[in-house]
Amino acid sequence: MAFTPPNPFDQQKPIPGVKHIIAVSSGKGGVGKSTVATNLALALSKQSPETKVGLLDADIYGPSLPRMLGALNQKPEISKDSKLQPITRLGLKIMSIGFIIEENSAVVWRGPMLFKAMDQFLRDVQWGDLDYLVVDLPPGTGDIQLSLAQKVPVAGAVIVSTPQNIALIDAKKAIDMWGRVAVPILGVIENMAYMLNPANGEKIQLYPKGEMDQYLDAKKLQKLSEIPFNPSISMSGEAGIPIVESHPKSPEAEAFRKAAQAIVEKLK
Amino acid sequence: MAFTPPNPFDQQKPIPGVKHIIAVSSGKGGVGKSTVATNLALALSKQSPETKVGLLDADIYGPSLPRMLGALNQKPEISKDSKLQPITRLGLKIMSIGFIIEENSAVVWRGPMLFKAMDQFLRDVQWGDLDYLVVDLPPGTGDIQLSLAQKVPVAGAVIVSTPQNIALIDAKKAIDMWGRVAVPILGVIENMAYMLNPANGEKIQLYPKGEMDQYLDAKKLQKLSEIPFNPSISMSGEAGIPIVESHPKSPEAEAFRKAAQAIVEKLK
Repeated sequence: MAFTPPNPFDQQKPIPGVKHIIAVSSGKGGVGKSTVATNLALALSKQSPETKVGLLDADIYGPSLPRMLGALNQKPEISKDSKLQPITRLGLKIMSIGFIIEENSAVVWRGPMLFKAMDQFLRDVQWGDLDYLVVDLPPGTGDIQLSLAQKVPVAGAVIVSTPQNIALIDAKKAIDMWGRVAVPILGVIENMAYMLNPANGEKIQLYPKGEMDQYLDAKKLQKLSEIPFNPSISMSGEAGIPIVESHPKSPEAEAFRKAAQAIVEKLK
Repeated sequence: MAFTPPNPFDQQKPIPGVKHIIAVSSGKGGVGKSTVATNLALALSKQSPETKVGLLDADIYGPSLPRMLGALNQKPEISKDSKLQPITRLGLKIMSIGFIIEENSAVVWRGPMLFKAMDQFLRDVQWGDLDYLVVDLPPGTGDIQLSLAQKVPVAGAVIVSTPQNIALIDAKKAIDMWGRVAVPILGVIENMAYMLNPANGEKIQLYPKGEMDQYLDAKKLQKLSEIPFNPSISMSGEAGIPIVESHPKSPEAEAFRKAAQAIVEKLK
């Protein structure tokens, strides 16, 4: 009798009440993934007054959502049936590994502990009814990403990249990884696409443009939006009020809304 | 009889011929760690005509040194005694996981494989005589960092961070981690500290200044250098000739040399 290896996707179960799980991932760190995830979640929630959005910060190594959403030092409550209650900020239901562990302590976690934590965030949080659950993943193509794809049906992945080829190489790896676990790519958000010179309005190409557009064309993938670099984005994040909320009329907020609309269309 | 747990540092052995192993690490990705490691290694090698420097790219998830040093698609030779020969570029002896694996393939490696790869890079590469071996580590505080500290005596760690608090939080975790494995901190390099406006020479604070200076003062740690952001740095990296080599008279190259000098002093 032939041996059939266990199929890890057998564990896959939807989260009751959650319609679409969107993975926000990047190949490389520092491309603004958490900033994009946060602003995207906010932009999605502003699509209509009824749209309900959750935001799960699964960036175990550098959880930044508590700070970006002005929710530092919050402790989620635990209900009678042992469920973690998400914190609500700006209309978003948020949960973060940062609520559970100390901000300053070195996190030297190994694979199995990461799996367990992910499981809890997906199963033991009282998400309630959500149209979209945006999951901010750690950069790269490691255990957490695989774990997510194995445990829940992911509606699609958004890849965040900066323009230069060194970032694109890693973005390709992320795209490749999602393909292997049969998660569709919703598209790529090009972050820090350029900066407008505060002195004269001219474009400054902070990072040289690589071959992203040609690559996306060849792969028939969509660029969901180009987000300009603006020091206000980082400043808003540090202050705990993302730019979609703090400067809703800025070109940057508009670029996030454009990405959100494209995603809504794709998931219809 | 009491049980004595095995001490993982018992495995620690120097690399024959290598005087100082310098770990370049960051809490967060995308702060320019590999750019700093590369330019720092070059600046160290230019301290005197005799100074010999090696550069090990241990960033398993996103090896970027082959591209940054114009050594894509190189295959290291293997000597008769089964040692890997480092590639020489701009006077540096370099070795990278990128020479071994395909650039586009998704690297979904787990802990034990990472340990094994690190071991090979430290033991099975014919480094020869080196004054400094600069190790470019992945961002964060994971298996590779611990593995390095357990296997070889690390002379000190350089932490790369950008100015804002969200980056500083992660830098603190990295500093904390090195403390736990008794590796001294040589200092912090503040990258992307500001940008000079190409239109009028005014400073643009790309990322808001956080509490780094106060933190370093309190911890009695040195800021080795502030590196300005300049699109030429990224452009030089993409072109395979780091800025210390391509624009040796630029303020950015000067800032890298300043960091190298500070490190040489500390290791005397």
